[in-house]
Amino acid sequence: MPRAVLPTLAVTMGDPAGIGPEVALAALCRRGARRFRPVLVGDRAVFGAAAELLRLDIDFVGPTDPPGPRRLPLFETTALPLRFRGWGRPRARRAAAACGASAFAAILGAVDLIRAGAAAGLVTAPISKEHVTLAGHDIPGHTELLAELAGGVPVRMMLAGPRLRVVLVTTHLALADVPRQVTAAAVFATIAITAAALRAQFARAKPRIAVAGLNPHAGEGGLFGDEEIRAIAPAVRRARRRGIDAVGPLAADSIFAEAAAGNYDAVVCMYHDQGLGPFKLLHFADGVNVTLGLPFVRTSPDHGTAFDIAGRGVADPSSMGAALDLATRLATAA
Amino acid sequence: MPRAVLPTLAVTMGDPAGIGPEVALAALCRRGARRFRPVLVGDRAVFGAAAELLRLDIDFVGPTDPPGPRRLPLFETTALPLRFRGWGRPRARRAAAACGASAFAAILGAVDLIRAGAAAGLVTAPISKEHVTLAGHDIPGHTELLAELAGGVPVRMMLAGPRLRVVLVTTHLALADVPRQVTAAAVFATIAITAAALRAQFARAKPRIAVAGLNPHAGEGGLFGDEEIRAIAPAVRRARRRGIDAVGPLAADSIFAEAAAGNYDAVVCMYHDQGLGPFKLLHFADGVNVTLGLPFVRTSPDHGTAFDIAGRGVADPSSMGAALDLATRLATAA
Repeated sequence: MPRAVLPTLAVTMGDPAGIGPEVALAALCRRGARRFRPVLVGDRAVFGAAAELLRLDIDFVGPTDPPGPRRLPLFETTALPLRFRGWGRPRARRAAAACGASAFAAILGAVDLIRAGAAAGLVTAPISKEHVTLAGHDIPGHTELLAELAGGVPVRMMLAGPRLRVVLVTTHLALADVPRQVTAAAVFATIAITAAALRAQFARAKPRIAVAGLNPHAGEGGLFGDEEIRAIAPAVRRARRRGIDAVGPLAADSIFAEAAAGNYDAVVCMYHDQGLGPFKLLHFADGVNVTLGLPFVRTSPDHGTAFDIAGRGVADPSSMGAALDLATRLATAA
Repeated sequence: MPRAVLPTLAVTMGDPAGIGPEVALAALCRRGARRFRPVLVGDRAVFGAAAELLRLDIDFVGPTDPPGPRRLPLFETTALPLRFRGWGRPRARRAAAACGASAFAAILGAVDLIRAGAAAGLVTAPISKEHVTLAGHDIPGHTELLAELAGGVPVRMMLAGPRLRVVLVTTHLALADVPRQVTAAAVFATIAITAAALRAQFARAKPRIAVAGLNPHAGEGGLFGDEEIRAIAPAVRRARRRGIDAVGPLAADSIFAEAAAGNYDAVVCMYHDQGLGPFKLLHFADGVNVTLGLPFVRTSPDHGTAFDIAGRGVADPSSMGAALDLATRLATAA
């Protein structure tokens, strides 16, 4: 029987001063056979320092070379200047900018690999928005950059765990700005992107999607706010007319228990903390960030650069491991 | 050894057409010795019908008579007219108004018992705001009515479960109206009421209180919204100057996992779904609503009238049981 071809996943370094390089290497060198072909993307010296830190004896080989238990293909996108002093938040502005430039270059390199057909999916280690900005790139985050690199496609952020999946209509903005961004168009697009991704990547032939209300008790018939009547209910009706099994708007205080009990494949949430509060309560260590709507698979661990513990070998690689596992499943299903 | 005096808990009927009467009786007639002296408050015919429904052979005795396993003291506050047709949402406006009047009278009666020193605490079955309004009483809910009856004291709503306690700064209002209600004064008052209640009723000598931010990532230093800088951080500082161990503003997506792990005795939340989304995920069946700030103990089950299943004997009495248990503990500690 011929062995199935394993999907290639490009794994970016993230900010070189954060925990990205070490959790990437630690997760890639876990016990057990890999169900994917990894290719690291970033800076050889940084990954080398991370390997030393973790006492891993690793040979970095060319990006198209075969990997092994202690052999990892590497696509080198930068070589950090010698003034890079290692782990933790750099004090010098120039070093911080170099970190940002290096992290940014790794993302571009990984997208190049995907465009060239040399990788099927992308797993990104955390970057520092501050460092990337210092390097001259004003991007809100990975998600927005990848959407732009993919030609400006509409994307949505999903947080996925074994028991719960949430997808956000709005993400990083003040709560006061949320209500006016909750439009019928934005909610419908979120439902549609979610349904398409659940079908294509999560192997749900008929996904069931719960849609949260914006207000307490989903507005209680207009008693507290009218966004449910004005925007959310019309979006749900439109989705149902298109054959999507969406239900809502539902009260956001009971929807998550029902979804975690298996009644829904995903919960569409109106704003960041509505989804992430319940999500991180269930999936503090094993949550995975998935970008829906891109023409390729992209996941990332659900944590930041954690500069305070970087370089000490204590960072927990389990979220990165979960991101690799999920990217493998999604890339295999796609 | 003399037997300790058991605290008396007044248990209101709630809306007579909802599941209140049946869950109250079912919870009061559970196996095991009661650690409190119950007194039902409401309508004898309604409680009689609930007993029949549950096949419980109960003697209703006078409000100061001793209770027994099948003997329940009852303080009768209304006698519903014969046109009351039983369980489920009444179709006739007059019947609905009668339900509201009867539920309202039971609350007033229970507060009378407390004022008279005949009860130490109050456990309320769910009412219908719509029915109470039809009866001519325009109240947002139990909490506000009890605060008014207690002389207009500032109160806060806590949801309490074995693993998590949340207290709300704002409750039933549109999300768009939340940011302007999150003032330093409102947040400080919530922290202070929470600390006082945890000390006096929950036996926490030095309560640790987590305070959530309003915006994603608690505003990330003013990047998304300034309520953290303008209102929440000053309130936390003021509380700390008064000797309260309050911490915050903290990102609302990680605070609940930390509180559930035991790092905090309560989480002060800025709005309804911020607290109740995570809370109900952990405590869907055993959550208890506690009113903090009243001069007496008040708890209630964390569910509504459930007219759709009332009178079928299938309503789950476990939240009412948890409300009775917690009221007993609070009344014993107080």
